[in-house]
Amino acid sequence: MNDQTNSKTTLEQIAKLAGVSISTVSRALNDHPLISRSTKERIWALAHEQDYTFRQAMPTAPIGAEGSIAIVMPYFHGRPLPLSHPFFLELLASIGEAARARSCDFTVSHVAPASYGDLVLATTTSRASGVIFLGQSALHRELNKLAETPARFVVWGANLPGQSYRTIGSDNLMGGRRATMHLARLGRKAIAFVGGTDPEAMQRRRGYLDALKQAGIASNPDLVCEAEFELESAEAAVGSLLRRGITFDAVVAGSDLTALGAIRALRDRGLSVPQDVSVVGYDDMLLARLSTPALTTIRQDTQEAGRLLVSSVLDQHASDQSRRLSTELVVRESCGA
Amino acid sequence: MNDQTNSKTTLEQIAKLAGVSISTVSRALNDHPLISRSTKERIWALAHEQDYTFRQAMPTAPIGAEGSIAIVMPYFHGRPLPLSHPFFLELLASIGEAARARSCDFTVSHVAPASYGDLVLATTTSRASGVIFLGQSALHRELNKLAETPARFVVWGANLPGQSYRTIGSDNLMGGRRATMHLARLGRKAIAFVGGTDPEAMQRRRGYLDALKQAGIASNPDLVCEAEFELESAEAAVGSLLRRGITFDAVVAGSDLTALGAIRALRDRGLSVPQDVSVVGYDDMLLARLSTPALTTIRQDTQEAGRLLVSSVLDQHASDQSRRLSTELVVRESCGA
Repeated sequence: MNDQTNSKTTLEQIAKLAGVSISTVSRALNDHPLISRSTKERIWALAHEQDYTFRQAMPTAPIGAEGSIAIVMPYFHGRPLPLSHPFFLELLASIGEAARARSCDFTVSHVAPASYGDLVLATTTSRASGVIFLGQSALHRELNKLAETPARFVVWGANLPGQSYRTIGSDNLMGGRRATMHLARLGRKAIAFVGGTDPEAMQRRRGYLDALKQAGIASNPDLVCEAEFELESAEAAVGSLLRRGITFDAVVAGSDLTALGAIRALRDRGLSVPQDVSVVGYDDMLLARLSTPALTTIRQDTQEAGRLLVSSVLDQHASDQSRRLSTELVVRESCGA
Repeated sequence: MNDQTNSKTTLEQIAKLAGVSISTVSRALNDHPLISRSTKERIWALAHEQDYTFRQAMPTAPIGAEGSIAIVMPYFHGRPLPLSHPFFLELLASIGEAARARSCDFTVSHVAPASYGDLVLATTTSRASGVIFLGQSALHRELNKLAETPARFVVWGANLPGQSYRTIGSDNLMGGRRATMHLARLGRKAIAFVGGTDPEAMQRRRGYLDALKQAGIASNPDLVCEAEFELESAEAAVGSLLRRGITFDAVVAGSDLTALGAIRALRDRGLSVPQDVSVVGYDDMLLARLSTPALTTIRQDTQEAGRLLVSSVLDQHASDQSRRLSTELVVRESCGA
């Protein structure tokens, strides 16, 4: 008797449990368009419960590589984030460099997860040693559920209360506070916040509100405006503030792209940065250094993040503790310091 | 008798031909550090000659994906290009979006090819349906040799004389000519060229020289200066021109990053762009639009390139003809038009 053989679940067993044919199971596991979503999700869940070893016939690493990592891009605001998004692309490059340093390939999944089924799909069907999800994609509860399965994964994102999966991310609360305190110290009194409703931006926003309180500045709900992690979205949001006659002398932006969008809207109304309005970004992308004015921003250490994310999925003995990486205020031109 | 079985080469056969043990063959195919480079290259060559089917036990696509593509980053100027290089990162994103549109994952190899062995390694050890090499990496002859093997691959790069592999790339000669003609039409007389020695930049340089001739401007070897595809390198090259007292009123840059480096060097000497010196870039990256002054540049259609590169490796009946994609002059601020 061979324990290993006995412990293997076969397609037949799953088919029997699901009450469908083997070919339906196989198609469901292949995410075939002819199989309905509900059948797929049922079969994926069964495959997980039964610990079906998809990869039993496949080496975990391509020949020539020491391991392989799968990266899953986020699904934000009802759609997959374009791969060309500059911050996530830079994060992808940092992860890739960390993988390369370990002679390891990385695969970018075509799936951007919008449901639990997508999370399962990304983790069960990849040949990789483990999966890195970029962002929580509004699937915090589903990620908690995934953490109960044998799937090996880690998330770049916010550390949230009641979280049972591992995250690596920047200390968003402290980052938002740092940006706001810097502007308060420069004497700015009417400080706006422009950012999204995803967990990371919400933590930055909380840091902004904390800092206002600490600086003795009353918060003004009119000055908090929503924008996605994209230039055009921030440009529209700040443009709308200005058109409504709301005045402010500083902006804390949820990302560097958001800051660039804000600056564009300000210029469009004849306001100059930093003379009329100071702006602080978040990320410290390459663009932050090269734009005019160069952006004052909160630096996220994406290189360290890349190393930790890669280690999380490659190293058997990697810590399963979440990490909040400290941020740094990088003072350039856009704040007027 | 089964033809398919008969046609399969085994590790044993390669071991016998190479006069080494099976474990040595296996290690060589895994690029194991204990095996010498020369033994590896001999075994890789044999594996190719014998049409060894590495992938016979592996499905060509991950479960859940319709196919898989491997991308190999270039090895330029004696070292692997950092994954964070903004142009290649944008090209990677375009390829990734094209792959995603076809429900296809993509893998980025940890190998940056510096030799024929590396090319073989990248094509034989990947589980992908095919390999996309970004750039020729100074391996034109080696790529010709690889084209004689059954490896399925395509190259993003220059279309070169005597080429027996397929390339997709922009029409560099025409692009260089377009940039230069535009500056000549603006009345610029002392037009410098700043670019690398890789095949693509060399074609852009030839286009520059052709256009000068066409415009009746004598070319001046002092005005042709070498710089890698990186900002700092271009900044140093143009800074050196200026320090040597060489004057010019326009720059044709081999890339947008090169243009940004040139602008930095010019500003550093108190010169303004475009008032004192007009600058035209090449690529039309996101940075080109967001920098100040916004860059006038030659647009490469990376989205179309992504689709063609992906089709090349996924579609059985894809054309094997090389393609020179037409470029477009995008006029913004840096040329002073």
